[in-house]
Amino acid sequence: MNIAIIGAGNVAWHLAQALATVGQQVKAVYSRTPKSREDLASLLPGALPVASLDLLNVPVDVVLVAVPDAVLATVVDELHVQPGTIVAHTSGSQPLQVLQTVAGARTGVLYPLQTFSKSKQVDFSHIPLLLEAQDEQTLNTLKVLAGSLSSSVHVVATEARKHLHLAAVFACNFTNHLLGISQQILQEAHLPKELLQPLIEETVAKASQQDPYNVQTGPAVRRDANVLQDHLRMLQGHPRFQSIYELLTQSIQVQSSEDGLGKGQG
Amino acid sequence: MNIAIIGAGNVAWHLAQALATVGQQVKAVYSRTPKSREDLASLLPGALPVASLDLLNVPVDVVLVAVPDAVLATVVDELHVQPGTIVAHTSGSQPLQVLQTVAGARTGVLYPLQTFSKSKQVDFSHIPLLLEAQDEQTLNTLKVLAGSLSSSVHVVATEARKHLHLAAVFACNFTNHLLGISQQILQEAHLPKELLQPLIEETVAKASQQDPYNVQTGPAVRRDANVLQDHLRMLQGHPRFQSIYELLTQSIQVQSSEDGLGKGQG
Repeated sequence: MNIAIIGAGNVAWHLAQALATVGQQVKAVYSRTPKSREDLASLLPGALPVASLDLLNVPVDVVLVAVPDAVLATVVDELHVQPGTIVAHTSGSQPLQVLQTVAGARTGVLYPLQTFSKSKQVDFSHIPLLLEAQDEQTLNTLKVLAGSLSSSVHVVATEARKHLHLAAVFACNFTNHLLGISQQILQEAHLPKELLQPLIEETVAKASQQDPYNVQTGPAVRRDANVLQDHLRMLQGHPRFQSIYELLTQSIQVQSSEDGLGKGQG
Repeated sequence: MNIAIIGAGNVAWHLAQALATVGQQVKAVYSRTPKSREDLASLLPGALPVASLDLLNVPVDVVLVAVPDAVLATVVDELHVQPGTIVAHTSGSQPLQVLQTVAGARTGVLYPLQTFSKSKQVDFSHIPLLLEAQDEQTLNTLKVLAGSLSSSVHVVATEARKHLHLAAVFACNFTNHLLGISQQILQEAHLPKELLQPLIEETVAKASQQDPYNVQTGPAVRRDANVLQDHLRMLQGHPRFQSIYELLTQSIQVQSSEDGLGKGQG
């Protein structure tokens, strides 16, 4: 298929390259920032950087709008495409309807459920791609496009997709922040972060097989007051980490009371 | 070596079996609870369940005390061993000194940095084992014992070990709780938890290679007020999750301001 990519941020960056890799034709890359659109287009054989959202003279099958949620509506307002072109955004949190103002377009969503940083390559072949579309025909085209990228393609309506995105914030964004705090603690104690890697991998492996609430371990669920106090004392130089420690400890204890548990060791 | 295990909880359960597997001789298993000590001893060739902490008539080289931190001091008070026996606890948070009241013992620590649940088998061969001992000779014996279990053996003094344990609470216990919340959100939206697995694995893989603070993504670091408000609204039925969402969002934003970042997409 012939494709235009709107955006050159983390998602657009990896999605455009993944499309090119599987043989799709990315014809145009739009970004407000000249250097961004030129950098990305230079990585895609046959792609041109474009400075305008008026694509009436750019014949493509699909326009993928991969821009931050906060600017999506503004970008959509300025977007013009040839009649019958599919316009799909890549956002987990935005409804399909946000695209309805694009005149003559068939609208859809292609949300890659993954975290993207320019500094790290991503293998798309197993990334869940969540699709939604205004009609069956549009959905089928997006299925073909998504299926060329990944073996994990799912049709998910707006409300469910928003819940997936919310769950992803807890499982990815918040987890990443905790891993950052954990590494900072190690660094300040002059300990190598590699020591925690087997523990982190086991935590994640266990959570994929069992209900994490049922396998909760540590001083919070054991209600080990001495250790909890000791940890808060050790965090005295980091009031922000203390607040997080207290709130998550409390939440673990409430959860385990509700579940009738409370015996994690380890 | 001939070994006695004190405790039959998650840590004792897996440690004792791992020792037996590599050919160490677990001779005795103590637990207050008859069924617990009998269940564990029955899995260890040649091991006897014992009902008393008086081990003066039980000739072993090493006594491993794997009990919850909150009862460690009490157990140690009642423990009697033959002179020259090594007594080592397995706690991340307790000092070596907690063992000094055991008459005639040589004291040490063997802390397996891992999360243990009885319901899940654990491969010890790469688990970091953190050692401390009162003297070089004791340390060398513990090194041999630990080395028979794992290729990752480290000597770490009490203060550093406590910081490792604190970091592990953030990286494992708190992360596990967030994964639990995330699965609950999916469940309530009738979505399969498998959808999040590639995202979680990528988050952890990225954190092992880069500073998590530098690769933070999501609506918090993007300061996407609309999405943040929408998520808090979706969590209205779960005030506890709302508080966690707000505090971690705030912490991510403070961190990214301090680091001079603020542009994560995905």
